[in-house]
Amino acid sequence: MSQTARAAVLEAFNQPFAIRSFPVSDQLETGAARVRVTMAGICGTDVHLWRGELPLALPVILGHETTGILEALGPGLNKDWRGERLQAGDRITWASSISCGECFYCRLKNQPTRCQSRKAYGISYTSAEAPYLRGGFAEQILLRPGTAIFRLPADLPDHALLGAGCALTTAIHGLERAPIAWRDIVVVQGVGPVGLAAIAVCRSAGASRIIAIGGPEHRLQLARDFGADVVIDVAEVPSPEERKQFVFKESRGFGADQVIECVGKPEAVNEGLELGRDGAQFLVLGQYANAGNIDFNPHAVTRKQLRVIGSWGFEPRHLNRAIEMLRDGWKDRFAAAVTHRFPLTDVNEAMEHTRELRGGKTVLVP
Amino acid sequence: MSQTARAAVLEAFNQPFAIRSFPVSDQLETGAARVRVTMAGICGTDVHLWRGELPLALPVILGHETTGILEALGPGLNKDWRGERLQAGDRITWASSISCGECFYCRLKNQPTRCQSRKAYGISYTSAEAPYLRGGFAEQILLRPGTAIFRLPADLPDHALLGAGCALTTAIHGLERAPIAWRDIVVVQGVGPVGLAAIAVCRSAGASRIIAIGGPEHRLQLARDFGADVVIDVAEVPSPEERKQFVFKESRGFGADQVIECVGKPEAVNEGLELGRDGAQFLVLGQYANAGNIDFNPHAVTRKQLRVIGSWGFEPRHLNRAIEMLRDGWKDRFAAAVTHRFPLTDVNEAMEHTRELRGGKTVLVP
Amino acid sequence: MSQTARAAVLEAFNQPFAIRSFPVSDQLETGAARVRVTMAGICGTDVHLWRGELPLALPVILGHETTGILEALGPGLNKDWRGERLQAGDRITWASSISCGECFYCRLKNQPTRCQSRKAYGISYTSAEAPYLRGGFAEQILLRPGTAIFRLPADLPDHALLGAGCALTTAIHGLERAPIAWRDIVVVQGVGPVGLAAIAVCRSAGASRIIAIGGPEHRLQLARDFGADVVIDVAEVPSPEERKQFVFKESRGFGADQVIECVGKPEAVNEGLELGRDGAQFLVLGQYANAGNIDFNPHAVTRKQLRVIGSWGFEPRHLNRAIEMLRDGWKDRFAAAVTHRFPLTDVNEAMEHTRELRGGKTVLVP
Amino acid sequence: MSQTARAAVLEAFNQPFAIRSFPVSDQLETGAARVRVTMAGICGTDVHLWRGELPLALPVILGHETTGILEALGPGLNKDWRGERLQAGDRITWASSISCGECFYCRLKNQPTRCQSRKAYGISYTSAEAPYLRGGFAEQILLRPGTAIFRLPADLPDHALLGAGCALTTAIHGLERAPIAWRDIVVVQGVGPVGLAAIAVCRSAGASRIIAIGGPEHRLQLARDFGADVVIDVAEVPSPEERKQFVFKESRGFGADQVIECVGKPEAVNEGLELGRDGAQFLVLGQYANAGNIDFNPHAVTRKQLRVIGSWGFEPRHLNRAIEMLRDGWKDRFAAAVTHRFPLTDVNEAMEHTRELRGGKTVLVP
Repeated sequence: MSQTARAAVLEAFNQPFAIRSFPVSDQLETGAARVRVTMAGICGTDVHLWRGELPLALPVILGHETTGILEALGPGLNKDWRGERLQAGDRITWASSISCGECFYCRLKNQPTRCQSRKAYGISYTSAEAPYLRGGFAEQILLRPGTAIFRLPADLPDHALLGAGCALTTAIHGLERAPIAWRDIVVVQGVGPVGLAAIAVCRSAGASRIIAIGGPEHRLQLARDFGADVVIDVAEVPSPEERKQFVFKESRGFGADQVIECVGKPEAVNEGLELGRDGAQFLVLGQYANAGNIDFNPHAVTRKQLRVIGSWGFEPRHLNRAIEMLRDGWKDRFAAAVTHRFPLTDVNEAMEHTRELRGGKTVLVP
Repeated sequence: MSQTARAAVLEAFNQPFAIRSFPVSDQLETGAARVRVTMAGICGTDVHLWRGELPLALPVILGHETTGILEALGPGLNKDWRGERLQAGDRITWASSISCGECFYCRLKNQPTRCQSRKAYGISYTSAEAPYLRGGFAEQILLRPGTAIFRLPADLPDHALLGAGCALTTAIHGLERAPIAWRDIVVVQGVGPVGLAAIAVCRSAGASRIIAIGGPEHRLQLARDFGADVVIDVAEVPSPEERKQFVFKESRGFGADQVIECVGKPEAVNEGLELGRDGAQFLVLGQYANAGNIDFNPHAVTRKQLRVIGSWGFEPRHLNRAIEMLRDGWKDRFAAAVTHRFPLTDVNEAMEHTRELRGGKTVLVP
Repeated sequence: MSQTARAAVLEAFNQPFAIRSFPVSDQLETGAARVRVTMAGICGTDVHLWRGELPLALPVILGHETTGILEALGPGLNKDWRGERLQAGDRITWASSISCGECFYCRLKNQPTRCQSRKAYGISYTSAEAPYLRGGFAEQILLRPGTAIFRLPADLPDHALLGAGCALTTAIHGLERAPIAWRDIVVVQGVGPVGLAAIAVCRSAGASRIIAIGGPEHRLQLARDFGADVVIDVAEVPSPEERKQFVFKESRGFGADQVIECVGKPEAVNEGLELGRDGAQFLVLGQYANAGNIDFNPHAVTRKQLRVIGSWGFEPRHLNRAIEMLRDGWKDRFAAAVTHRFPLTDVNEAMEHTRELRGGKTVLVP
Repeated sequence: MSQTARAAVLEAFNQPFAIRSFPVSDQLETGAARVRVTMAGICGTDVHLWRGELPLALPVILGHETTGILEALGPGLNKDWRGERLQAGDRITWASSISCGECFYCRLKNQPTRCQSRKAYGISYTSAEAPYLRGGFAEQILLRPGTAIFRLPADLPDHALLGAGCALTTAIHGLERAPIAWRDIVVVQGVGPVGLAAIAVCRSAGASRIIAIGGPEHRLQLARDFGADVVIDVAEVPSPEERKQFVFKESRGFGADQVIECVGKPEAVNEGLELGRDGAQFLVLGQYANAGNIDFNPHAVTRKQLRVIGSWGFEPRHLNRAIEMLRDGWKDRFAAAVTHRFPLTDVNEAMEHTRELRGGKTVLVP
C-alpha cells in the first residue's frame, strides 16, 4: 500500500492545477473507506469551479464523479447502500454528497438535496486539511462514514457510468420532481451531458416526441442516438423566434407539453417559457451557477398558467436508478459519450478539453 | 317590459363612461336569456381595461361580476348549471366566460380556462354590434346559450356574492392548481380582493399560519378578519429585505411553504420567490395584465428547487364552489367587504373610487 | 343508397343472433350521421351480454367497436372530435359512449365515465325503437349528435384499430387514473385484449419490467410481442402460491410496484393483492361484470398500505390517444392480434369463436 | 436514582398483568436515554395484544404512547428530533417505532412505516432480555439510540398528548397518504380514538361536511366536539342500508367524496365502499389486526372507479405535526378525551376499562 497519493490540486482560480502528494493514513474511522481511484469524470461544474464562478474554498481536489477499487474498509463498513456485501477489492462508485439526515430539510421536508450541511466530494472539502484526499482527481480518495457506496456490477464498466455521470442522476431527480406524462411532447434545451441525459430519461419514460435544441452537430448526433426525434441546430437556426416556430410546428401548433432547460445560460429560461403550450410544465435543470439576471416578464406565467419547477442535485436513490437504467439497455450509448481519456498528470489538458466542449465526455484515468 | 335599456359604455380609454340606450329585442335564441341587472361589481381588471392596459375592442359595456333577475328564457333553457329548475323571476349569477368545449385546450388538455375562443361578458363583446348588451354595467344583459347560470339561494344576498366577485373564483381555481398541504405556512402578497380571497380559501383549507403583506390599514384589518394570523403593512415596513426577515421569523427561519402573489406588480414576483423556503410552491395569481418586465435571476428556481405555478381565470365549477363556500360561513365577511354602492349613472365616480382603492369593494346598483 | 340495412340482432340470451332488415331513414337530425360499417370488433363484453350477464334491454344490435365510411352528415356536422374537416366518404371510428356533459359527474366531478345518462352504442339502445341501427353488428349505423367521431388516417387500417378495440382505450384510461412511475416493475394479470393493451401501454410508459400471467401459449406469445419481459403460464403454474414466488423472485423479493388485474374473475383480485410489494398500486381493470363474491381479508390493505384503484370505461380523449399510439409504432402488433374475420351473416360462428377464446381478436366484416 | 424499576408485565394472554421489578443499569450506550415515565396511554391495540390477537413474544411490557422525564442521556445525545437542546429533567415523548433507514422500504421506497426491521416500544421487545424496560407501562423506560425524541413544550400537558395518542399520528399519516380535497364531504366510520382523530384532522384540513357513524352517545358527543357536522348512532340506526340512505341524503344523493374506515371490524369495509360516490377515495385506517374475512364483491371497485388506500403506522414527522396541531387550538379537546387515570399497580383495572370502552381514553400514571 502506498504511503502517499498524488492528486491534482486547484490552488488558484483560472490557473493550472498542480500535482501534489499527500500522506495517506493507515487509520480509518468507523464507517470510512479508502479507495484507489480508477476513473474520474470531468463535469461542466468543474469548469465553473475552476473559473471561480461558484463558492469554493481553495486549495481543493476537484472530482465528484468517480469510480474506484475499495482498498480498505473502516470498522463496521461491510455492505453497500443497497445492502450488498462490501469487501476490499470491490469496484465501487458513490453519491457525491452526504446529507445530515437530521435538519429541517432532511427530516421535516423530505428534501435532503437541500440539507443544510450537505457536503460534496470534489467541492466542499479543502485539501489543506487532513485527511486531504476528498476529491476524485487523485490516485486515492478517502470516503467519510455515511457515504452512499454502490458496488458496481461486472457488466457496467467505469466509462459507461461516468459517461452518464452526475448529469444522469441530476436529470433523474429533476424528472422525478417534474415527471412527464405518458406521450407528452418534450423539448430539451441543450445537448450537453444534462440535456442528453434528460433526452434518455424522457425517451425511456414514454415521451411521444422529443425535440432537442443545441449544437454542435456531433452533440446533436448524440441527441439523436439518445432518443431525440427532431433536433434544431442553434448555429443553423440562430433566431429564437424561428426556433419557436419550428417547435410549434412539431407540436400541433401549440407548443410542447414539457420543456426541460439544460443550457445553463439565464436567457434560455425566457426562450423555454415560450416553447411550451399553455399549461405546460417547465423544468429548470440547468441554472446551477448564478450566471446573472435576465429581463423577464412574469405575465406569461399567469396567462399561460405554467408550472415552472426547479431541481437541485440528487439523492442516493437516484444514483441507484441510474445504475439500473444503464444496465437496462443504456450503457453502450452512455459509454460511447466518453470520447477522451487523460492520465491524472494531464489534468490541465483534460480541463481545457472540457472547457472548449470538444468531443463528448472527458475522463481522468489516474 | 322596457323596449330599451341603458348601459355605461366605455368609448375611449381613460375617458368618462357614457350612458347610452340600447334596443332590447323581444326575441331570444335557443338557450339564451335576458336578465335585469340587480348589481354589478367593479373589479380591478375594470380599471386596467378603462386605462387600455389590456386588449379591448371599443366601445364596450364593462362588468363581468353581475347578479340579476331572470326576465325571459330562450327556448330550451329550463335549468341552471347545477340542474336546478330555472324560471322567470329567479335571481341568478353566471360564469363570466364561455368556453367552446371543442378546442385543443377544452378537449385534449382539460384546460377550458385557456380555451382558444373563450369570450367574457363585460370584456370580449363590443356594444357596437347587436345584441349590444353583453356587460354588467347596464340595466339589462343578454346571456348567450351555453352560459353557466346559477340560481342564487335566498340566503345569499347579491352583495355577499359580489363582495367575493371574480377574485374568489380566481383564488379557488389557483389553489386547485397549486393546493396548499395541510398545515402549510402561507404568505399572501397583496390584500386586494384576490389576496383577501386567497386568505379566506387558505384559512378554510387548513393553513397553519397565514402571513399577509399589503396595505393600507383598513385592508389589513379585512385580511385579519378573513383569517390572516399576521399582517405586514408595506407602508410601515417598506424594505423587502426587512419584510423577508419578518416572514422568516414567522416561519421557523426558513420561509413559507407556499407564497401566493396577488399584487399584480411584476416586482412582487421577485419578492415572492424570496419569501418561500427551499422547495416552496409559489402561486402567481396576480400577473393578469402585462405590466412590464423585471430584472430576474433564474438561478434561485434551480437552487431552491421551487415550484412556480400560474393560474388564469376559472371554470363554472369554481363559481359553484364559491357559492357553496359563501353559504358555509363566509358570506358575512365577504358582504362586509362591499363598502360602496353607486347607481349606474354614477359609474364614473364609482370607477374613480375603485381606482383609488378607497374603501373595500365598490358595486353598481342599476 | 340502400333503403334498408341488415343487422345481427340479439333477441334472446344465449340464443343465436337473427339477421334482420331495418328501414334506414333519409332524414338526419342536426349533428347526426349515417355510417356504412366496414368492420366491427367482437369484445369479451359482447359474450357477457349475449349470456345475459350484464343489464341489457332486448332486442339489441351489439357492437361497440366499429369502423365505417361516413355516408351522410346531418346539418351542422362538418368536423370531427379533433376539429378536422369531415365529409361523406371519410373513413371513421367513434367513441362508443356519449356523456351528457351536464350531470353531477360530468360537471362537478370531471368524471364523465360515470355520467348518469351515459349511453353506449351496441349496448344501451334497443333495436325495437327507431332509428333501430345503434350497434356495430350491422351494415349501417346511425350516430347521434354529440358522438365523438374520429376521421381515421390513411395509415391506420381498420383491423389495426379494432385489434386494439375498447381494450386499449380502457387500459389507457385506467393507467391515467393509476399511472405507473418510471421504471416500475409491473405485473399484468391476464393476457386477453385488456391485458395485452395494458402490457403495451406500460411498455410504452417506462416500466422497467413487465411480468404477464395468463394463457394459453398463443396469448402469452402475444404478451411477449407486446412487451412482457417474463410470462407465467397458468396452465404450467396452476398454484397461486407458486406464481407469487415466481413474481417475487422477479421483483427483488418484495413484489411488484404495480399490479394490473385484467382477468375479470373475482378471485384474481385476491391473487393480485398478494403480488405487489408493500405500498404497491393495484389497478382493478377487469371486474367489469358482477361475477360474484370472494372471501376477502381487508387487513392486507391496511398492513401493506396498498392503493387499490378502479377504472371504468374511457373518454374520447383516450380514443384519441389510442389512435396516436397505434400510429406511433404499435399498429402492426395490434393488427396482428386480429386473427379471424367473418361476414355479418356468420355472426353466430364469430361469437362462438370469441367465447371459446380461440385465436386472437375476431371481427365482423359486413 | 432508583436501582430498580417496576413494570406491568404481560406474561400470558388474557391473564392479569404482573407487577415485576427490573434492575436499571447505570450505563447508557451512545445515543440512548433513560426516562422516568410520567404517563402511559392505553390504546385499543394494547387490548388486542393482551388477547393474543397480534403477533407478540411474551413476556412483554406494553405501552407505546408515553411521556416521561429524561433522567439520563447516553454519550452524544444532546438534541431532540427537531434539533432542540435536550438535557436531564426535560419532559419528553418519542415515536414508538424505530426504522432502520437502510432497507428496501426505508431507502428505495421512502416508506419507513414498512421498514423490514421496524421495532416498537411496548410491542416488539420482550422483557425477558436486558435491558428489559422497553415499554411504557413501567416506572422507567430505556430508549434506544435512534429513537425520535421530542421535548414537550410547557404549554402541552401529558394528558393532552396522550388524549391524542398514536390515534392522531395514525390519522395524520393516513390522511397524508389519502388527503381530502378542499371542501370534500367526508364520512368517518367509527368514533373510537382513531375516528375522533380523523374527524379532527379532516375538520382542520378543510372538509365541508363530516358525517360520523358510531356510538355510544358519549363518543358521538366527542365526535361533535371534534368537528362532526352530523352523527349517526349505530344503535339507533342498526341497518347499514338505512345508514347509507342517511349518508346519501347528507351528500347530495351521491355519497361522500371520502370515506375513512376507523372501526377495525372487517365488515366495515363493505359498508364503507357503499358510502362513497363514484370516484370516491376510501381510506382503510382501521384494519390493524387481522380480524378475519368478509364476503366481498370487487365489481364495485371497477364500476364506481374507487380509490382504496391503506396506511400503516406513522413516521416521526407525523408525531411532530401532531404536537404542532395540538398546540394550535386542539389540545383542550384531546385532553378532555382522557377520562380515566390509574396508578401503574391498577393496570388490570385500567385494561378492563379500556376493553369495555367505558368513557374516553384511559391512562396509567406510574
